[in-house]
Amino acid sequence: MTGHRREGSAATGNLGLCTDLYELRMVESYLKQDMRASATFSLFIRPAVVRPWYVALGIERALELLSSFRFGPEELEELERIGVDRHVRDELGAMEIDTGEVWAVPDGTVVLAQEPLLEITAPLPVAQLLETAVMNLVGYATLVATKAARFALVAGGRQLADFGFRRAHGLETGIEAALAAYVGGGFATSNVEAGRRFGIPTTGTMAHSYVQAFTDEREAFRSFASDHPEQSVLLVDTYDTVQGVRRAIEVCDELGLEPRGVRLDSGDVGSLAVEARRLLDEAGLTHSLVIVSGGLDEYAIHELLEGGAPIDGFGVGTSLTVSEDHPGLDIVYKLVEYDQRPVAKFSGVKSIFPGRKQVLRPEEGVAGDVLEPRDHPAAGRGLLRPVWRDGERLVEPFDAEAIRARVRSELEGLPRSWRTPPYPEQAPLPTVGPELDALTERVRRDAFGTDTDG
Amino acid sequence: MTGHRREGSAATGNLGLCTDLYELRMVESYLKQDMRASATFSLFIRPAVVRPWYVALGIERALELLSSFRFGPEELEELERIGVDRHVRDELGAMEIDTGEVWAVPDGTVVLAQEPLLEITAPLPVAQLLETAVMNLVGYATLVATKAARFALVAGGRQLADFGFRRAHGLETGIEAALAAYVGGGFATSNVEAGRRFGIPTTGTMAHSYVQAFTDEREAFRSFASDHPEQSVLLVDTYDTVQGVRRAIEVCDELGLEPRGVRLDSGDVGSLAVEARRLLDEAGLTHSLVIVSGGLDEYAIHELLEGGAPIDGFGVGTSLTVSEDHPGLDIVYKLVEYDQRPVAKFSGVKSIFPGRKQVLRPEEGVAGDVLEPRDHPAAGRGLLRPVWRDGERLVEPFDAEAIRARVRSELEGLPRSWRTPPYPEQAPLPTVGPELDALTERVRRDAFGTDTDG
Repeated sequence: MTGHRREGSAATGNLGLCTDLYELRMVESYLKQDMRASATFSLFIRPAVVRPWYVALGIERALELLSSFRFGPEELEELERIGVDRHVRDELGAMEIDTGEVWAVPDGTVVLAQEPLLEITAPLPVAQLLETAVMNLVGYATLVATKAARFALVAGGRQLADFGFRRAHGLETGIEAALAAYVGGGFATSNVEAGRRFGIPTTGTMAHSYVQAFTDEREAFRSFASDHPEQSVLLVDTYDTVQGVRRAIEVCDELGLEPRGVRLDSGDVGSLAVEARRLLDEAGLTHSLVIVSGGLDEYAIHELLEGGAPIDGFGVGTSLTVSEDHPGLDIVYKLVEYDQRPVAKFSGVKSIFPGRKQVLRPEEGVAGDVLEPRDHPAAGRGLLRPVWRDGERLVEPFDAEAIRARVRSELEGLPRSWRTPPYPEQAPLPTVGPELDALTERVRRDAFGTDTDG
Repeated sequence: MTGHRREGSAATGNLGLCTDLYELRMVESYLKQDMRASATFSLFIRPAVVRPWYVALGIERALELLSSFRFGPEELEELERIGVDRHVRDELGAMEIDTGEVWAVPDGTVVLAQEPLLEITAPLPVAQLLETAVMNLVGYATLVATKAARFALVAGGRQLADFGFRRAHGLETGIEAALAAYVGGGFATSNVEAGRRFGIPTTGTMAHSYVQAFTDEREAFRSFASDHPEQSVLLVDTYDTVQGVRRAIEVCDELGLEPRGVRLDSGDVGSLAVEARRLLDEAGLTHSLVIVSGGLDEYAIHELLEGGAPIDGFGVGTSLTVSEDHPGLDIVYKLVEYDQRPVAKFSGVKSIFPGRKQVLRPEEGVAGDVLEPRDHPAAGRGLLRPVWRDGERLVEPFDAEAIRARVRSELEGLPRSWRTPPYPEQAPLPTVGPELDALTERVRRDAFGTDTDG
């Protein structure tokens, strides 16, 4: 066992092994039992107090997955190694994800817990194998887009920058996070590769190491401002913050430049921002920005701004990129129908609603959402629409700008009390419509009624 | 701006753009100012109450990074687009990370906050550009290995399985997490691709969807146990857990099989485990395992086992893979020496110690660690050793089994009170040795002494 990485299966572009072993064990059994009928799995988030609403993102990722989830020779070899039956391997090797249908909300839609983000209808073995990857891809994008939207609402139009690349769980993850933060909250990013890949605006000037590499803070500011006259946001807290602001002003004055701004990264940033603003204004530098960073979350920013801190922009890292107060979205992918039979699971708080569903959103917005069976007469005006059918994509390719615009408009539809701290003390849920309620009762009676001898 | 992903820079294998924009802006200035002298950056973790110690992992990743951090034509084109000066681009294009030295602790070493995991000495621009990626790669591996080790200590030899692929922040991240959980805590994994790539043992049997796909729980158990007689861990909580256990026993009895075990995934698993064990034992199935999963962390497992719950193994997801109670490791990469001048930053709690360092660990173990300058006479017996010099790797390739063995032996060296809850109420820190203390004072005096007019 050695550490050769970044080769092999992931490099083939085939994602068939990006699944949990139990999916394969179940699929082996489904195929042996000839259980190939159509199944619908529903992807939704379980209620959590820390998030009253979510910005759905990652539907695009799920569609990409459908085109790369297959088993090539290398993947089939691994299946042989772990003892998957030959007939099953043959069938998986020939498997095409082209008979099926995906319904989903558009990327950028605001949803509540229990509302399906996506429903896949496909032969049971196929839909089962996709579980792990669909949850992973939609889950993380939604987590970051949601957190970013919360920041945007408290920041009220001030500049936001994603500084989280270094704290992301992996390099690719940091790049994906930058995109989710952009579409969810309009964040610029420090991430150079995300700028290249997605065209997101990038931002960044200097770190403490730059200041320390000079023997004198003034000399550091002088060099940076000369070399980057247009991008001179000077980091002023390496030694003493207020002194740092004074030196930044002096140096820029000597050079005849207006500094783009100062950045405060430690200390009591609320009162330091007041002092920095005062010094800048006294020097006539009313256009120079006060930027703040260093362990900020949406609660801290809200408090700073409610307290009147004169801050023009925020750099946010860990809190955003790992969704620090809620790093593990409780997203689930549940079988709700098999072979035209609506099914459910009734284990206490983890219970789910049976059948294909639709989210009905009234004119007044998300707070009035109703959950009904998808074939309910009123369900035509629902949030979910078909995005993939029999191998064909039914929606436009991902467009970050369009999704960004959708998120902005969706956030305007949020009730005022859901927008900024203090958030609701209980996660709002959609109303369960009368049709769905009746169906759920019927399925529950069947589950417990037909077999009460246990 | 469209959503074309997984192409371009990451696909070139060149990681030059995996950096923050401010690194590039500083490097532009360093090059213009001819600041190419040797710099040392030190990678360490800031103290956090939630983690008294860490299992260092990801040094191997940092070494891989050194071989792929370069700017090819595609990366240079992006630098042009974002306005990086032509001379700077030429120099970056020709940059070779072959003059420099890396000292590091071995992967799998237990370290404390403030102890360097790795120190890079290289020309300032090179060492600066590596910051973001080094922090990212070492940070996440260390986060998960540490969490996994905490689980291993509370589980006391019981089986542990990583079920976290679906909740990881990205697909590749889930695969890396499985490796870190294996070396840090001996976790098997549900992750099929991690099994293929790293040879980690995989595990997994069935989900609720399998049970629901049948019209009858007994029929589901019968099919699964027949199709997988060796792997028949039956999930018993889809409808009613105790009834599920009874049905599992009946079905296996009919088939003449001894079930491998039952898995409980919801409810009061402590008392349900007692009941499940009792029913299995009554049926003579004393070798059948009771496996528990569903939102468990190391505190919950500790409490279950302290309470005497008869559990043979645990499946752990979110808590492990996103390090749920501490998802953002406070790891930093700080300039500590430039051009033979030890430097530091003195911003309150974020202060750091200057100069290249060594961690001296006495016979009695980690609790007696002392931090001293690397050239201190006693520092020869330190934890950090050279791992890379002038383009040449000085250590053996990553070997997961060897690192796993190192972690086990390191964990035996932990003070008893650091092993399981309740953990220490303050993060233990290494003692600052007299030489380092004197050096720090000297640097502090220089920083504030030469320029007190501000």
